[in-house]
Amino acid sequence: MPMRSAPLRLVVAPDSFGGALGSAAVADAIATGWLRVRSGDTVLRAPMADGGEGTLDAVALALGPRAERRTTATVDALGRPIEADWLLIEGGEAFVEMAAASGLARLAPSERTPETARLASTRGTGELLLAALDAGAQRITLGLGGSATTDGGSGLLSALGLRLLDADGGALPAGGAALAGLASVDAAGLDQRLAEVRLTVASDVTNPMCGSMGAAATYGPQKGADEGAVAELDAALAAWGDAIERTTGRIVADLPGAGAAGGTTAGLLGFTKARVRPGVEVVAEMIGLADALEAADLVMTGEGQADEQTLSGKAAMGVATLARSRNAPVVLLCGGLGPGSAALDAAGTFAVVMPIGDRPMSLEEAMADTERLLANAAERLARTIDIGLVLGEHSE
Amino acid sequence: MPMRSAPLRLVVAPDSFGGALGSAAVADAIATGWLRVRSGDTVLRAPMADGGEGTLDAVALALGPRAERRTTATVDALGRPIEADWLLIEGGEAFVEMAAASGLARLAPSERTPETARLASTRGTGELLLAALDAGAQRITLGLGGSATTDGGSGLLSALGLRLLDADGGALPAGGAALAGLASVDAAGLDQRLAEVRLTVASDVTNPMCGSMGAAATYGPQKGADEGAVAELDAALAAWGDAIERTTGRIVADLPGAGAAGGTTAGLLGFTKARVRPGVEVVAEMIGLADALEAADLVMTGEGQADEQTLSGKAAMGVATLARSRNAPVVLLCGGLGPGSAALDAAGTFAVVMPIGDRPMSLEEAMADTERLLANAAERLARTIDIGLVLGEHSE
Repeated sequence: MPMRSAPLRLVVAPDSFGGALGSAAVADAIATGWLRVRSGDTVLRAPMADGGEGTLDAVALALGPRAERRTTATVDALGRPIEADWLLIEGGEAFVEMAAASGLARLAPSERTPETARLASTRGTGELLLAALDAGAQRITLGLGGSATTDGGSGLLSALGLRLLDADGGALPAGGAALAGLASVDAAGLDQRLAEVRLTVASDVTNPMCGSMGAAATYGPQKGADEGAVAELDAALAAWGDAIERTTGRIVADLPGAGAAGGTTAGLLGFTKARVRPGVEVVAEMIGLADALEAADLVMTGEGQADEQTLSGKAAMGVATLARSRNAPVVLLCGGLGPGSAALDAAGTFAVVMPIGDRPMSLEEAMADTERLLANAAERLARTIDIGLVLGEHSE
Repeated sequence: MPMRSAPLRLVVAPDSFGGALGSAAVADAIATGWLRVRSGDTVLRAPMADGGEGTLDAVALALGPRAERRTTATVDALGRPIEADWLLIEGGEAFVEMAAASGLARLAPSERTPETARLASTRGTGELLLAALDAGAQRITLGLGGSATTDGGSGLLSALGLRLLDADGGALPAGGAALAGLASVDAAGLDQRLAEVRLTVASDVTNPMCGSMGAAATYGPQKGADEGAVAELDAALAAWGDAIERTTGRIVADLPGAGAAGGTTAGLLGFTKARVRPGVEVVAEMIGLADALEAADLVMTGEGQADEQTLSGKAAMGVATLARSRNAPVVLLCGGLGPGSAALDAAGTFAVVMPIGDRPMSLEEAMADTERLLANAAERLARTIDIGLVLGEHSE
């Protein structure tokens, strides 16, 4: 074998692989395979995420000791006591993943009923935000996505001191459906720190809060809502939007993205100074991806299937776009090529698109074996690029 | 994209891909895919073969205008008139593929009967050798393998003037079974040019002509022989071995490899100055592979499945061994990895072993799509090695 070539600096910034493997595990597998062959290289693991479930793990992996995983006692979407993690990040920053407390994954599949859809509350996420404020965070990123809730963020805001009252001046019960009985809102007790903290909402949803494209109609069914519950929740969210307007003068219900996480964005835009930004962009910034790419010789990203949607996709394309302006070649590892993948080569966005399969096999086999296949494919990439490195160095 | 790097010299020397694609088509597909990306490189196609079916096409492709494809009227294993190709090579050389005239592939599947096994004759191959001699060839390579015959090469030698006589002095009928009635052999009329020509037999078979490991027992069944025909042919070949010994004083029946192509090697060792050599070695020499590798920056070989048998295999390992002494990295493209393939990486024989599949799929799909998958995999290899080339050149 020829002598190994000079060390490279790699950034490994993959998306998750569909239902097979989270992005943190994907990045781990790629790094492991690569380092088997080129152990002298510097490999920075920067798994991508869009703010939804898995974002916390991805950020924690990328930041390493710069992020401290905190555990807080809170409640799930149905109000049951749970413990949930969030991240306290060096420099007065925090990351809260909504799915960690109020996520659909916290419920048993059998619990995804119309009644759950009516009752589910974002209160648990509000408790995590409180914990972050208590820990002194001056910048908080809240990752939406994967929530079990359709309460317009009213539960979250209640945890932070907002009072929701019925016609008799009594406290409203939890959940989205209860908002139909909302008579007035008292914002006087809202946590003062919300006025100071820089709150960023990471979300890629573009739906408004109400109507046929609204939170209840679009995402309600996957949270258990039947036709009746969808109509009920949609009307309740409209009442919530009216109350926000009456209380704050802000018209938020129809804004694009207001419907994210069951209307949580609408509530936050109404009562806080939250700024909504695309999930992948926020995550990239939080983990310092742009800086990491600045120094990279080579970038590896990945996603479950590479096809015509890849070019309009978020994680892999986002990484490629950032990397491109820095002239670092980007390799896309994928479980397989799908329809229209030829367009990927034509676009030239990726230096190479590399499927990870190592023999004819079924999709089920491939998904069950994703971790091993990824590591071995990364090893092959290292071996192959090494051929070029050695030839290139000798050609001078 | 970074600027493409300096041109490379490639040698593409694959084996065939099992039942999916012959080695010449494999080499074509690899070259095509590679040149899509790195069109400035020099790609020499040198498909490998072991002397059996497909060798003629492989040699013709590698030699290009230096080999002239000749067509000669001859007979198939059952004596029916056919036309068969052979190669007249620059510098007084010829290549004859036994399968082209006397091959099993010339017979319909329904013709593979015990009666066919008894009657099949190598005479048609002898006619091709005669044509090569008539064309002035001073060196002839005969590729064995894929024959339908079990006649000890007696038919081939008859075509060249040997007379096989029964107890009444009459000419023996064609086929292996008839050798049971062989009383004497008259070599006086054997073509005089056989004494001058340098005849090389390309064969990797190690079986003797007779017995439980002999030509009839080992290869008879795939040629249509049932138990009775195997026993009959084995006894007939033994009689043929005795006759060779009586006539020439040479004891050839038990030599390793004498059983190749239904005992053809035994007949040739008995009545000619033929030299038997490993098929891949002969083909490599004929196409000038060693010289080509001398100037190669990179070598690509391939085979249907890469597994623990690859390291003891012929084509891919032969290429790797030749390339290694010249320090050129060798890439092995394969349809898939099989049992024990990890040993390949450990052995370090190949710089990288690259499966060609591009998504989860069945073996049937993969085999039907081998040509496209190979070309695309070669394109990915070119793209990947190019990343290293560019990084390597810039690292100085």
